[in-house]
Amino acid sequence: MLSRNLIKYIRSLEQKKFRNGRGTFVAEGSKLVNDMLSAFESELIIAKPSWMATQGDIPAKELLAADEEDIRRASLLKNPQDVIAVFKQPVYDIEEANPSGQLTLVLDGIQDPGNLGTIIRLADWFGIEHIVCSPDTADVFNPKTVQATMGALAHVKVHYAALEAWMQRYEGQPLYGAFLNGRNIYAEELSATGAIVMGNEGNGIRPALEALVTTKLFIPAYPAGRETSESLNVATATAIVCAEFRRRVSSVVTTGLARP
Amino acid sequence: MLSRNLIKYIRSLEQKKFRNGRGTFVAEGSKLVNDMLSAFESELIIAKPSWMATQGDIPAKELLAADEEDIRRASLLKNPQDVIAVFKQPVYDIEEANPSGQLTLVLDGIQDPGNLGTIIRLADWFGIEHIVCSPDTADVFNPKTVQATMGALAHVKVHYAALEAWMQRYEGQPLYGAFLNGRNIYAEELSATGAIVMGNEGNGIRPALEALVTTKLFIPAYPAGRETSESLNVATATAIVCAEFRRRVSSVVTTGLARP
Repeated sequence: MLSRNLIKYIRSLEQKKFRNGRGTFVAEGSKLVNDMLSAFESELIIAKPSWMATQGDIPAKELLAADEEDIRRASLLKNPQDVIAVFKQPVYDIEEANPSGQLTLVLDGIQDPGNLGTIIRLADWFGIEHIVCSPDTADVFNPKTVQATMGALAHVKVHYAALEAWMQRYEGQPLYGAFLNGRNIYAEELSATGAIVMGNEGNGIRPALEALVTTKLFIPAYPAGRETSESLNVATATAIVCAEFRRRVSSVVTTGLARP
Repeated sequence: MLSRNLIKYIRSLEQKKFRNGRGTFVAEGSKLVNDMLSAFESELIIAKPSWMATQGDIPAKELLAADEEDIRRASLLKNPQDVIAVFKQPVYDIEEANPSGQLTLVLDGIQDPGNLGTIIRLADWFGIEHIVCSPDTADVFNPKTVQATMGALAHVKVHYAALEAWMQRYEGQPLYGAFLNGRNIYAEELSATGAIVMGNEGNGIRPALEALVTTKLFIPAYPAGRETSESLNVATATAIVCAEFRRRVSSVVTTGLARP
């Protein structure tokens, strides 16, 4: 049986202050832990012997056998898996997020950890390697975020920065933003490099950043001009915007509407 | 103070068996309750007097004043709002979901209530009025689903049906499905009517339905052909697919890639 102190340590990592104090974070489940092992240094892994038996060489500093009860006590999930790992938080150089040679995603005050994780996952799908977040965006190492990335966290670098200053550095580059009063994304020119800003779930992009955006984009509802009571979830809106940017730079020629 | 039995009744509606036994469901929060009131018959509303004061005529069969403590006890949310309402479950005619004259969304085994709610919300945005779900899809009246729709549930009709039989009825219509081994959606003809099938988060669309799909679609990763460890979240994939169907039937001419 694992010690009470060890269980207590793992569980403490649900809270940001303890994560940052120790510079670590938790990932759970076989697929996710394996993806994380390819990118981050592990500090500790607790796992069922049956899981260990299916693995090759596991590069963990400390690898402890756990039984069902240990896992249940340590897990932050409703449905605990066979393995729980503690990784060191990576340190990235924000210079790499420079949008002059690539498409960079910028998140302004995204509150929901699950939304953040889903956005990291779709950034990976669309080959976006850097996400720059405002300091009040959810923490990338929140366990709900880590789990929602489904492993994409191993491929996408998430930075935190004061966004106004960061965007000012890149004036002259195309800085797109999604707005309910923006211009139809399908009628705008979209570039292969630059930044795309997505705003808070309720309030959108804050005015100081809006002033720095060079092109305000809007995802048209259907039929066009129809009144809707609502907006799109920020992760689904981000997905549609990123898909459209990537469609433009791909060479496929759209065949248009089928005439049945 | 509200009676213990009343509180117990509201809280019981977190469970499907009690929801279906009573034929009711719960919605919480001012915006959501107002949207629901426009579409569904209310059975009971409990609200703070301060909320009631901001409303006009409230068409509730039973309207009870509640204090902070009542709301806290009755609420199914982490952060209770000012109003909790119980509505009668609507009964819809599945004949209306006929895909021969409209685009209908079909969900095969979507497990997560939040994903279902997000999909209902984006269906509303894209003017899709009917969603047909397999019986093992999450329950539309799960409080997590209802809350995630952000009111879109008032505009989108969600049906449950044995999908194989339902799809067989519409052979001859275009029946699209999203698959990891499908054809690039941007290179396929897409019609303005028909059905779009989205599959389970882990297993995709089941074989019996796959056999009935006429066009298998795929959202290309970027850069094209790049290996990714993962797929997209089902709600984000649904968003991208629906956006692309609606883009095709809209009259906007895409101006293409900006040349910087």
